[in-house]
Amino acid sequence: MELTRKLQSEIRALHTRHGRKKSRLCCCEGLRAVRELFAAAPELVHYCVCTPELRTALPYPREPITVSNREFAALTGTVNAQGVLAVSEQPPEPPATLLPEDPFLFALDRLGDPGNFGTICRTLLAAGLHELWFTGGTVDPWSDKSIRSALGAQFRLRLRSFPDLNSMAQQATTFGYRNIFLTDPHHGENCFTTPDLFDHSLIVIGCESTGVGELPGARHTLIPMPGNFESLNAAQAATIFLFESVRRHFVASGVK
Amino acid sequence: MELTRKLQSEIRALHTRHGRKKSRLCCCEGLRAVRELFAAAPELVHYCVCTPELRTALPYPREPITVSNREFAALTGTVNAQGVLAVSEQPPEPPATLLPEDPFLFALDRLGDPGNFGTICRTLLAAGLHELWFTGGTVDPWSDKSIRSALGAQFRLRLRSFPDLNSMAQQATTFGYRNIFLTDPHHGENCFTTPDLFDHSLIVIGCESTGVGELPGARHTLIPMPGNFESLNAAQAATIFLFESVRRHFVASGVK
Repeated sequence: MELTRKLQSEIRALHTRHGRKKSRLCCCEGLRAVRELFAAAPELVHYCVCTPELRTALPYPREPITVSNREFAALTGTVNAQGVLAVSEQPPEPPATLLPEDPFLFALDRLGDPGNFGTICRTLLAAGLHELWFTGGTVDPWSDKSIRSALGAQFRLRLRSFPDLNSMAQQATTFGYRNIFLTDPHHGENCFTTPDLFDHSLIVIGCESTGVGELPGARHTLIPMPGNFESLNAAQAATIFLFESVRRHFVASGVK
Repeated sequence: MELTRKLQSEIRALHTRHGRKKSRLCCCEGLRAVRELFAAAPELVHYCVCTPELRTALPYPREPITVSNREFAALTGTVNAQGVLAVSEQPPEPPATLLPEDPFLFALDRLGDPGNFGTICRTLLAAGLHELWFTGGTVDPWSDKSIRSALGAQFRLRLRSFPDLNSMAQQATTFGYRNIFLTDPHHGENCFTTPDLFDHSLIVIGCESTGVGELPGARHTLIPMPGNFESLNAAQAATIFLFESVRRHFVASGVK
């Protein structure tokens, strides 16, 4: 297979939201991310492009398209091109009839930064969860930046999108997740002492600048901060919630 | 005051490690970081440069140097120039005779990424700590990237540097911090169940790729990860340790 002009412009188009929307493809860059993609969803991959050095590092059964370093850098537009990319279909959302298996659900409301999104995907997997929900206005999970920063973790997650908080909360309730917690830097129940925080709940992290939207009937939860430094990064807040759930699980199971 | 050629080249030199080492100055960019600098150490500031729109947002008592957007962008070399910067002296390290006040000490061993460094500074302050220790080989705390990503949090911390882990551990012991914990992704005591993890201890986070160095006699501590996604980002690991200390403090003090 050869890197035709058609493929070149296909790959370049995947660096724009419009291009991804039109083709329903995504561009997955970097060795670690490509490996995650192959481990999670090999059937979605259309083809791989790599530089000669990375040829043997690839888990791909079919022959990748090998190009020079210069050609590769021209394709990706990143300063430090990583020498390997895969073009794949965007994984479909799970059907609404497929019940989540996680003890609680984790969600994002209009999270804007692909770096935060990626970090949250990785942390979610490390914490043993399988689903990530998000509202419209959240960064595109299939952008090259989101994939690079998650190291491809999103290929192993079930992502579900909703137009807004309201429809998300409705779906959660339908699935039996009845406690809705909105994270809040200023007021709410202490995340370390709320007994039912992870009991069939939906926990929502908000937009970096404006926080979580409003949702009548939802509870608020906060991370206590002894220092008076204003608010943690969204990814740090997510990490604290996710590993508080891990801690409770370990303590409850009596593992040392 | 005017933006002379001399000042222009002084500012540009602060974007290199060599330039910062020579002048012992640093360049603090962005409104939030500049505000932190003024709140923490106004006496260190030499001058401010800003674009006309940001003139009134500045807390600076003396007149800043106002320049056009184009001139500002040329100074900083960042894609999204933030319209305000301050040139300041690098805060001196506290004298070795000054005892730390924190219940435990947090340290970095050859941490390489300024984004991780900055996030850790912010999280440390939010968790109510005041000191951050680091070994040689750690990213420069006074680089423009470190300052931007910490939003200037390092100006409010006491930073202490050491040639290596050994000399750092010696100093900690001298100060009465006798339990040395090296964080480790693969083996060690569970961070959620180790009773004396924060009891006059020194907790060390390691290099993103090679982890913490070796130190005879030190204990190892790990974050349990139910998911089998390989290793958290260094900043996420730091966040989990720091807020586990916050949690224990809140639980011990009986606050709800």
